[in-house]
Amino acid sequence: MWAELLPIGRSSASGGYRRHAWTSADAECRAWFQEQAEARGLAYEVDRNGNQWAWLGDPADGDAVVTGSHLDSVPDGGAFDGPLGVVSAFAALDELRFRNATFDRPLGIVNFGDEEGARFGLACVGSRLAAGQLTVEQAHLLTDGDGISLPKAMAAAGHDPDAIGADPERLARIGAFVELHVEQGRALDLSGDQVGIASSIWPHGRWRFDFRGEANHAGTTRLVDRRDPMPTYAETVLAARREAELAGAVATFGKISVEPNGVNAIPSLVRGWLDSRAPGQEALDTVLAGITRAAREYADAHGIDLDVARESFTPVVEFDHALRDELGRLLGRDTGLTVPVLGTGAGHDAGILSGSVPTAMLFVRNPTGVSHSPAESATEDDCVAGVRALADVLEGLTRR
Amino acid sequence: MWAELLPIGRSSASGGYRRHAWTSADAECRAWFQEQAEARGLAYEVDRNGNQWAWLGDPADGDAVVTGSHLDSVPDGGAFDGPLGVVSAFAALDELRFRNATFDRPLGIVNFGDEEGARFGLACVGSRLAAGQLTVEQAHLLTDGDGISLPKAMAAAGHDPDAIGADPERLARIGAFVELHVEQGRALDLSGDQVGIASSIWPHGRWRFDFRGEANHAGTTRLVDRRDPMPTYAETVLAARREAELAGAVATFGKISVEPNGVNAIPSLVRGWLDSRAPGQEALDTVLAGITRAAREYADAHGIDLDVARESFTPVVEFDHALRDELGRLLGRDTGLTVPVLGTGAGHDAGILSGSVPTAMLFVRNPTGVSHSPAESATEDDCVAGVRALADVLEGLTRR
Repeated sequence: MWAELLPIGRSSASGGYRRHAWTSADAECRAWFQEQAEARGLAYEVDRNGNQWAWLGDPADGDAVVTGSHLDSVPDGGAFDGPLGVVSAFAALDELRFRNATFDRPLGIVNFGDEEGARFGLACVGSRLAAGQLTVEQAHLLTDGDGISLPKAMAAAGHDPDAIGADPERLARIGAFVELHVEQGRALDLSGDQVGIASSIWPHGRWRFDFRGEANHAGTTRLVDRRDPMPTYAETVLAARREAELAGAVATFGKISVEPNGVNAIPSLVRGWLDSRAPGQEALDTVLAGITRAAREYADAHGIDLDVARESFTPVVEFDHALRDELGRLLGRDTGLTVPVLGTGAGHDAGILSGSVPTAMLFVRNPTGVSHSPAESATEDDCVAGVRALADVLEGLTRR
Repeated sequence: MWAELLPIGRSSASGGYRRHAWTSADAECRAWFQEQAEARGLAYEVDRNGNQWAWLGDPADGDAVVTGSHLDSVPDGGAFDGPLGVVSAFAALDELRFRNATFDRPLGIVNFGDEEGARFGLACVGSRLAAGQLTVEQAHLLTDGDGISLPKAMAAAGHDPDAIGADPERLARIGAFVELHVEQGRALDLSGDQVGIASSIWPHGRWRFDFRGEANHAGTTRLVDRRDPMPTYAETVLAARREAELAGAVATFGKISVEPNGVNAIPSLVRGWLDSRAPGQEALDTVLAGITRAAREYADAHGIDLDVARESFTPVVEFDHALRDELGRLLGRDTGLTVPVLGTGAGHDAGILSGSVPTAMLFVRNPTGVSHSPAESATEDDCVAGVRALADVLEGLTRR
């Protein structure tokens, strides 16, 4: 399976993947999904929001067990983020058929559309639409970097953009959703485990910091006469690192925009975007308050105007405790071992669905801990362990 | 004169000027120069490099006294940087004719082309070409942001690009060049003087700092596992401010480029451009060594690869001492007052010409100290004082 999927949308320059929603690379990935479904005699369908489904048994019977992930990527992303969950889903089904497993509940495999949001700027569009967390009106306003709207891109890829919208009946048929994903950190590598279970997705926000000063000539303006916003931005970057360290959280200034951005011009505006996530809401509040306080103090001392605006926020997602404990029992059944339970700072379709459906996640070890980069990795041995774990879980869940 | 010149190339959005070389706004400015020359019965000519000249007397007689500046602007520049020197030149000639002055030496007024380098990225192209500090081959390689080459832009504006090149005979006819310019700082405002004389142009360099780390997921990568170049950039910005303060110099990070520049991505690369200038070479060396040392220490401590590359460098320009002292005598003649002598961090055509011709500069007070911005200013009273000072200087210099 991997052999056919691996070359799709891969950049020969970076070695990374550029599988953005509703592009030709995305269409090739989607064709691959349909082939895999049909080769296994599964009933294939595309839902109103462009998510792909493959069914064993009739989902109309309800209380279905569903697994899967996404096939799209961030710009120059790795091979595993997303595809590992879809490939493992098909492989786990193969394993269960090899075991002659019986299925008392319908089993579904899903590829959610546009999870990474690399093209239209919003993550998890397919699952958000289905769960009613994104309205049709909001979705129709999304545009990519070339000004192409989401409806136009969907239509160009052969999907009816007027069909999209909340799909509560489809979600109501699902009794449990389990997403397998490569770990985006080194917790399993550090603990020496191949597979882990998710406890929660950390609360997560993005804030825009606008530091406004006064444009001036970099050669002739005395330091004391300057209102240069760059040093205040710099102090804020360092405060973010410090506050995140103190709180056991993460805080990142990864995007910046400077005006006029000339070598010999003191900037009039430095705009920096902060991404911060913490194990809990209180820790995240503490981090943000600390960064904002430090930024404001430096800004006031240097005549800089500061505006802080929250651009997005996702509260903590606690995965279904009963399902999580069930996964722990199923995975420890043969070995007696305890599978580690860990939180994650990344958003997932599983996080979106958890508001509508009992949801759980499995993580597979990533020895580099690197994510959203070609350096993301997983060993073959760990991938096989992930497939076995997913098969064990599906076998247990589909048996009444 | 100002009334006709003021509206040309002015942006109604910013109130700033966009008079870039060989554009239609530039052509309007150049037409204005020709009109002013012809209205005064001066001999008008354009040299091989697109610089405009207006002559009283025959330059072929040699030992000419020339004044002037430039009419082009930076993006959203102010009204005075450049044009004040050209307008004052014509006004000073009017004043001298009103005084019935006699001219024993030829008197020229010049508008140098493309001083700001806003379009093709290199400052003082007109004077550099004439002085042989820019070769024809180098000039032909210059392109603007739209990929239009300098020769193509010149040709489109009706100037023969194959005619450009060093013009030593023309420069050899000039016995003294005096450029009047609005001050790009607050020294005169602080000393309470309307007009000052330039001592030198500070040595000036631009350096590119490449901080390379590792792109990773901003939500899932623990702080200790990161190789995030942004905090190291931030420490370097603060080091630049500190080192410049200690040395009485200036240092500015005004331009930055980040890869991949995504809100949820730890950057793989932060590229910052440093502009630094100091009263002398030793001070500039000290500033750069201090910044580079601090940057390297932080980079090493955080696993960041650092490359520092010098992109341009202009050594100190000491204006002709004899001419400078002569200006001081001429300006203090009636009043007995001493005119302040000050250094400047900005480059000028006068700095380029000083290698070939005895050169001096006069500065007119700028109460805001702001430059390269619509907030640049000069009072009418100070502009009149500037014209009188220039007239005094020209009267003294043209009389044998």
